[in-house]
Amino acid sequence: LESDDAADVLGVLSDEKTEEVISHLDDVDHASDIVDLLQYKEGTAGSIMAKELVKVQENWTVSTTVREMRKQAENVENIYTIYVTDENDLLLGRLSLRRLLNTAVKTQISDIYKPGLEVVKTYTDVETVANKMKKYDFVAMPVVDEIGRLVGRITIDDVVDVITEEAEKDYQLASGISQNVDYSDNVWMLTRARLPWLLLGLLGGIFGAQIIGLYEADLRLYPEMAFFIPLIAAMGGNVGVQSSAIIVQGLASESFLSLEIFPKLKKEFMVALVNGLVCSIIILGYNLIFSESMNMSITVSIALLCVILFAGLFGTFIPLVLNKYKIDPALATGPFITTVNDILGLLIYFAIGRMMYA
Amino acid sequence: LESDDAADVLGVLSDEKTEEVISHLDDVDHASDIVDLLQYKEGTAGSIMAKELVKVQENWTVSTTVREMRKQAENVENIYTIYVTDENDLLLGRLSLRRLLNTAVKTQISDIYKPGLEVVKTYTDVETVANKMKKYDFVAMPVVDEIGRLVGRITIDDVVDVITEEAEKDYQLASGISQNVDYSDNVWMLTRARLPWLLLGLLGGIFGAQIIGLYEADLRLYPEMAFFIPLIAAMGGNVGVQSSAIIVQGLASESFLSLEIFPKLKKEFMVALVNGLVCSIIILGYNLIFSESMNMSITVSIALLCVILFAGLFGTFIPLVLNKYKIDPALATGPFITTVNDILGLLIYFAIGRMMYA
Repeated sequence: LESDDAADVLGVLSDEKTEEVISHLDDVDHASDIVDLLQYKEGTAGSIMAKELVKVQENWTVSTTVREMRKQAENVENIYTIYVTDENDLLLGRLSLRRLLNTAVKTQISDIYKPGLEVVKTYTDVETVANKMKKYDFVAMPVVDEIGRLVGRITIDDVVDVITEEAEKDYQLASGISQNVDYSDNVWMLTRARLPWLLLGLLGGIFGAQIIGLYEADLRLYPEMAFFIPLIAAMGGNVGVQSSAIIVQGLASESFLSLEIFPKLKKEFMVALVNGLVCSIIILGYNLIFSESMNMSITVSIALLCVILFAGLFGTFIPLVLNKYKIDPALATGPFITTVNDILGLLIYFAIGRMMYA
Repeated sequence: LESDDAADVLGVLSDEKTEEVISHLDDVDHASDIVDLLQYKEGTAGSIMAKELVKVQENWTVSTTVREMRKQAENVENIYTIYVTDENDLLLGRLSLRRLLNTAVKTQISDIYKPGLEVVKTYTDVETVANKMKKYDFVAMPVVDEIGRLVGRITIDDVVDVITEEAEKDYQLASGISQNVDYSDNVWMLTRARLPWLLLGLLGGIFGAQIIGLYEADLRLYPEMAFFIPLIAAMGGNVGVQSSAIIVQGLASESFLSLEIFPKLKKEFMVALVNGLVCSIIILGYNLIFSESMNMSITVSIALLCVILFAGLFGTFIPLVLNKYKIDPALATGPFITTVNDILGLLIYFAIGRMMYA
């Protein structure tokens, strides 16, 4: 087991248990690597890096290098990159294996290595590491400490897990599942991950009931106003989830050129306007043909357009603001957005209805 | 550029353009590699593999091998694995670099290689490849043709893109976005990806209006029945999205031990029962305190329990069935499930209401 995987396994044990296991490791170097790794905070590059790597010093000759590399390679599953450091472990660059094999044995490494290398710091967060490796198609990245000394490396297989977990987490939050659960978890864990969002929906439903309750007298006179309650609520929810998902994905992949809010609202306004006009005109056509109440027909279409515009802007705005305050924007997708848009949709719908019927 | 990346670039050009570019390549070997890769169907292992790899023959000696490897390594960015084949390119196993370097130069490869290797076929679909590499933490996998000849290899960096795209696609579908768009796409593309799902929601809303329309006379008498329409609709939608997301993620990660439907329905029934009882009891308490109508209080709680149970089972059932018929189960998350559950929730709610008020 490489040090990073070993540290992962030990990380879930209690402190005493961890100590006990480590004290039974025969290989002192291996044990001290693992202890080092346990110090790094979860979610940082340090916590997912492995200590095993191949590094050579710039003042070595090719023949020393080959001899040392053979020793080092015994502990390394895949070499990927030969790192070049000075005698204080400061990372200088990398050495091509091909170049090494084609060079006379007396040559110094400093004459043949390639200086400069993309690095990450031990405290860089893993999502940043993942995005960087994905962007540049790296299979391994060196990790350096505050002053640039090589302390470990992160390989792409560790990062694949980070990328997958991140995408799954966003997806789950958007679906109203608050913890990382999967089908194999027991009924109690699945319930616990799902119930909080349902309670939020319940609270939203109670607010909705109170809003409609304000219009009880109107409903008695014009019960047809109730017909389109589900439509208004559903469309607000759908549009809000769509627009927030686009923002959350943009933030996750760091594809935004800037984090300015206004241009994004402007673009969403255009998209919502087109979608809203299409939907409103269709529903107007439907109501003009099948409904007897002109008042209701106009109410539904105007309210629908307003709700779609509002929901789109709200779904864009909230995740951007959350992100600004370092709160996970994915929290804003799914049930939260749906619930808020349900309530505001009802307010808009009945307010317009009262105006039309007045 | 390695052959797989070159083929990707050319894949988006027209046929004539592709031919023109290839005819200008000086390196005939490289050009023929690219042409080979263009033949494979998109979404198969063949389409993402690279032809560049290091392979040696079992009947070579160590010294021949080292000489040949140096030549081959010039075209390969990262070696990862030295593949061993017979003279007909049939893949036999792999050779450890360390072993090779520590063996006398006259030894035959057949005496030192490690037979057997996890492989994928050219026609294996990329998601299967991605899951396999993730599961075993592979950084490279050999690709063989129908009769087991080594034709290429897939490296983890190619697979990271597949994994990310897959997760993003599921997330987008769950959010009601039907094509792979991101924030930087123009208003027209964003609208086109979102409008179809909104039209589905619109259709659902029209059905909902018709269902409520059947109860117009009841609403005139008991307008309080309208108060909880949004609650019933929202809860059905929320539960359905949750349960379908858990199934879709399970299918995507192949974490199910079996694809049998019944045990999954049974588990979801238990989760929905607990969630449903909690929510129903809370809303019953609320209504007993704040509402004057006992009939309505009981109607809302019974309907809510039924809707949550039904939505949970429906959200579990539909993606499993779609998967059985080779339709992407992610289509069933998001707006489709929400819309169907909205409609069925209303049917259940008003049917129970009429019984209670009768």
